[in-house]
Amino acid sequence: MARYNKVMQVSEPYQATLTFGPARREVAVGHVIDITPAQPFRFDSGAEIATLSLAYQTYGTLNAERSNAIFICHGLTGDQYIAGPHPVTGKPGWWEAIVGPGLVLDTERYFLIVSNVIGGCMGSTGPKSINPLTGHVYGRDFPVLTIADMVRAQVLLLDALGIDKLFCVIGGSMGGMLALEWAARYPERLVACAPICTAARHSAQNIAFHEIGRQAVMADPGWAGGDYITQGSFPAKGLAVARMTAHVTYLSEMGLQDKFGRRLQDKQQPSYGFEVDFQVESYLRHQGMTFVERFDPNSYLYITRAMDYFDLAEGQKLADIFRDTPVRFCVVSFSSDWLFPTSESRHIVRALNAVAANVSFTEVETDKGHDAFLLDVPAFHATLKGFLDGVATARGLR
Amino acid sequence: MARYNKVMQVSEPYQATLTFGPARREVAVGHVIDITPAQPFRFDSGAEIATLSLAYQTYGTLNAERSNAIFICHGLTGDQYIAGPHPVTGKPGWWEAIVGPGLVLDTERYFLIVSNVIGGCMGSTGPKSINPLTGHVYGRDFPVLTIADMVRAQVLLLDALGIDKLFCVIGGSMGGMLALEWAARYPERLVACAPICTAARHSAQNIAFHEIGRQAVMADPGWAGGDYITQGSFPAKGLAVARMTAHVTYLSEMGLQDKFGRRLQDKQQPSYGFEVDFQVESYLRHQGMTFVERFDPNSYLYITRAMDYFDLAEGQKLADIFRDTPVRFCVVSFSSDWLFPTSESRHIVRALNAVAANVSFTEVETDKGHDAFLLDVPAFHATLKGFLDGVATARGLR
Repeated sequence: MARYNKVMQVSEPYQATLTFGPARREVAVGHVIDITPAQPFRFDSGAEIATLSLAYQTYGTLNAERSNAIFICHGLTGDQYIAGPHPVTGKPGWWEAIVGPGLVLDTERYFLIVSNVIGGCMGSTGPKSINPLTGHVYGRDFPVLTIADMVRAQVLLLDALGIDKLFCVIGGSMGGMLALEWAARYPERLVACAPICTAARHSAQNIAFHEIGRQAVMADPGWAGGDYITQGSFPAKGLAVARMTAHVTYLSEMGLQDKFGRRLQDKQQPSYGFEVDFQVESYLRHQGMTFVERFDPNSYLYITRAMDYFDLAEGQKLADIFRDTPVRFCVVSFSSDWLFPTSESRHIVRALNAVAANVSFTEVETDKGHDAFLLDVPAFHATLKGFLDGVATARGLR
Repeated sequence: MARYNKVMQVSEPYQATLTFGPARREVAVGHVIDITPAQPFRFDSGAEIATLSLAYQTYGTLNAERSNAIFICHGLTGDQYIAGPHPVTGKPGWWEAIVGPGLVLDTERYFLIVSNVIGGCMGSTGPKSINPLTGHVYGRDFPVLTIADMVRAQVLLLDALGIDKLFCVIGGSMGGMLALEWAARYPERLVACAPICTAARHSAQNIAFHEIGRQAVMADPGWAGGDYITQGSFPAKGLAVARMTAHVTYLSEMGLQDKFGRRLQDKQQPSYGFEVDFQVESYLRHQGMTFVERFDPNSYLYITRAMDYFDLAEGQKLADIFRDTPVRFCVVSFSSDWLFPTSESRHIVRALNAVAANVSFTEVETDKGHDAFLLDVPAFHATLKGFLDGVATARGLR
């Protein structure tokens, strides 16, 4: 394995086996490498770890010039499986629709790298990893982390893979925060950047919704102070409530109304009880129940917290963060997204325009809400493909 | 006590003492009467109860013609205390700002009646009442109820008070649903109706948020299958999460951003932990914690369910419900209310216009969200006052 950063030690990729859900199902999650940097990995909080594991998948082939790599950053509960089948759920990957030969993320043209963020639960170091200093699961001893910490780990992965410069960094939602962080802190390591339905800082309303989710998890006695793996418990109900809350914020009112309205679930009359009466209740409960089978409750706390802490400019002017940037940007928002509304994207675009950066901006009309970035929205796919094709042509990428 | 409906038995008003919160604090809650109708009170579900208690407060004086009574319907977690001090919280009433001599709800001109809805927890029959058939607290044995059931009980109260015709029925949010139900089912019992920031049917998104709240309550082991009073437990954490979720939906994104932004709570740096870092977290936790001291968890389940079931037209055209209505309507919405958005009010107004009803409609510009109906929003107060003054003058009310 070629290494950009020669001083760090990198293991050969191996297949990690991890435990998921209340039933503690064991699943192999794909490629993982262990990295020991020359200096311990230092979190923004000041905490340090000597070694970190990074799980990743790649799609397509790196060209001889090593110039066709696209780094894709996943959202809060996403992972490295953009194309399936997903090892835990058996379902298609989260960007299945646009990954493949001739598609938006053309695997004949690009080399796609997707890595589970640190703090995650799909093989990268996180709260359910073993703390090498104690031999026990980290749990709440895992350092609280930031979006910047996640990107710093991704830079180590890029070094380990021996890639000097990325053709593009793409991400939606939290992935868009990571993409912005890449462009702001490592402008020399990427040609282009596509932050999608995201923000340069997490809003008060979004912090509020995250706090509700965390309170729901921590209110569940199964959480056991974060020690549920050791204690043999699991906060399934609390995590399900957190997911249900988040899920509503991913949709739009109109989308919910069109999809479910006030239709009853398999009945003609209401039950006059608290079981499922409405289709939308059934749908939400299903979302909650399936989520707990694949996601780690502590990872949910840590990653939502990292998003809450995200504020790229932090007291500075956002424009100053991007002054003289050589990166080309493609900013996309969705008209019915009320979690990361178009106003957040405009805020980014205004800052980029203020420093004469190369930026295109599209608000895609859709009733699919925030989730639109994961769904079949042709106008979005055309926008992203157009941007990638344009930059590829400008760079002479075949 | 004068009685419209002569065949029913009505007790003298008495002071009820009720138990509140995890600490089981005993509080006197004001006037309560017991009503035994000629026929058992029948819920929409088919369940029946022989006697029901109704807690109410009045403000101002009923005139000799008995023509100046305004019935005020409270929202989901409101009660009969529109003016304070509130017996449980000690705080001002929820419409304190507009109740009094010369104010919008002018106590020198009008006789205001406010009653706790059945299913509630401030003295009217609800899940924490004693089931006379068993001698035990109803809990989950209380019949699941509807907005129509609540209004049917309010009609019994009106009969008990000997009032034939109301000058107006006013309500915001769920109170607006009750007001619409009054106008639709008992048009001969009211002159005017002011449904504020409400809807003629509960939307899929709102059902979703209610379902999340219910799941949060029921996920708490302290809920004990609804039997927490008998079991000596209390689902404080679950009810707090439910309240936090609901509370965010009562505000607007812009309101939250202006009020809290990303400001930290009593610190300069984030703590890199899961305790309160942001002011918005502190505020939400406070909302959750104070709510559990005053509200009954089962009432929360029952009343949210009643709202979910609300669909005034139910398969019919909404306009047909109001055909030939003699009632004068004043419909009000708030521009930043995303829980009961202006589109819901427009839906009501279109139906009323389609049958040439006497209706005025105002969308008040404000960043205060759904909560605007409880806050100091002069344009709203002026609208409501103008409507009441106009109808009063037309009716020759001094």
